Amino acid sequence: MQRYKIKIAYDGTLFCGFQRQQSDPTIQKALEEALEHLDGAFVPVVGASRTDAGVHALGQVAHFDLNKPRDPFSVLKALNARLPKEIRVVEVNSVDCDFHARFHAKKKIYTYTLSTSFQQSPFHRLHSLHFPYKLNSSLLEAGCQILKGTHDFKQFANTTTEKNRPPSTVRTLFDVFTTQENEFITLSFIGDGFLYNMVRNLTGALLEVAQEKISIEMLSSLLGPMVLQRNYTTQPAHALCLKEIFY
Amino acid sequence: MQRYKIKIAYDGTLFCGFQRQQSDPTIQKALEEALEHLDGAFVPVVGASRTDAGVHALGQVAHFDLNKPRDPFSVLKALNARLPKEIRVVEVNSVDCDFHARFHAKKKIYTYTLSTSFQQSPFHRLHSLHFPYKLNSSLLEAGCQILKGTHDFKQFANTTTEKNRPPSTVRTLFDVFTTQENEFITLSFIGDGFLYNMVRNLTGALLEVAQEKISIEMLSSLLGPMVLQRNYTTQPAHALCLKEIFY
Repeated sequence: MQRYKIKIAYDGTLFCGFQRQQSDPTIQKALEEALEHLDGAFVPVVGASRTDAGVHALGQVAHFDLNKPRDPFSVLKALNARLPKEIRVVEVNSVDCDFHARFHAKKKIYTYTLSTSFQQSPFHRLHSLHFPYKLNSSLLEAGCQILKGTHDFKQFANTTTEKNRPPSTVRTLFDVFTTQENEFITLSFIGDGFLYNMVRNLTGALLEVAQEKISIEMLSSLLGPMVLQRNYTTQPAHALCLKEIFY
Repeated sequence: MQRYKIKIAYDGTLFCGFQRQQSDPTIQKALEEALEHLDGAFVPVVGASRTDAGVHALGQVAHFDLNKPRDPFSVLKALNARLPKEIRVVEVNSVDCDFHARFHAKKKIYTYTLSTSFQQSPFHRLHSLHFPYKLNSSLLEAGCQILKGTHDFKQFANTTTEKNRPPSTVRTLFDVFTTQENEFITLSFIGDGFLYNMVRNLTGALLEVAQEKISIEMLSSLLGPMVLQRNYTTQPAHALCLKEIFY
């Protein structure tokens, strides 16, 4: 038996997220089907992040075990030969059998991309949010600064079932910053972990701040213990991308 | 009555080309439906180029007449409000009633994009041809030089019905060149007009030359009067883009 760590890029547009579901197309399902063909038996795949329906990835990571050990590069070629073109395995490494893609992840980068041009290019509609509105960049920058550090992000997590509720909602954001290239503004979030819908909620709140609809103080209060009315919206999935995971 | 010239960008992936057909989705049909809603009566649209199924555009041009003259910017907004997101009107101008999008076009730029990385990014699969093969760039450059000028391109035109056969197959290519950005090589063709599948055929022949499968002399002979066996293939539509039209 040999354990492998793989890095995966995918266009999530047509998938119901990473995690396997009964019958809907998911990234995990596609990987497990390709691996079953390769190894001759069902191979469970453990992903680092359960990206939602429509969310993309440039650097998702997963692990699995093969009964018949193979050269990593031949695993990469065999998987890509069977996977749909929306999913590409970009790296395969043999790892120790105690490596765990989810539990050993130390740092993750998510990006949220806004297209600020008056007319959104038809070529970027599936990977950026059309946002042709005025943004106050000083306030946006100040909002990013407020979010940095270790906080209880429970007011930025959408409720999931009791079963899936995390034991703690405290997370650390090592960095939050914006970059601009042509008409695109990208918000990058680097953290030790993220709650359900956390990036899409943080983006929603930052956009309210940058539009001068909620104050920096209010944003700060949302990180505090007092439960406040949520005056921001969860932003759409299709502009979110899991960019990289560090171990 | 007022005539308008519009510039249109579209992702052609899900369309059966520009030209209206019985029932299939086409760019012309989508534009005419949006215009009928605006003007209250059927408005025929005349496009400059009949791009094929799957071909994209950044700068397609068309003209039409509205019974009720309107401000160009309000026409742009009204059309984009009704068009699917795959199609964006990027410019609208009022023009004289004798302007003709097809007959008055002087110069067109088409691009054909190759993705040369070992694994094609899932984000570029719909707009570039995955071509992870060795290319001789000097031969590619020499091939581009051979194609420049006024030639009879009949051996680079796919046969269409007798009805649609052009009166002449002589065209002028003002320039043919390649550019590289990251893993992408883009072939640009600037000409006074293009025959059916001409760019996809020229690209096919240039790729054969750059792979040292056919000689520069053979490429040159294909521009001559002697009808030769075609030893290149028509390249796929999805990497082709109508970039700009000049009047």
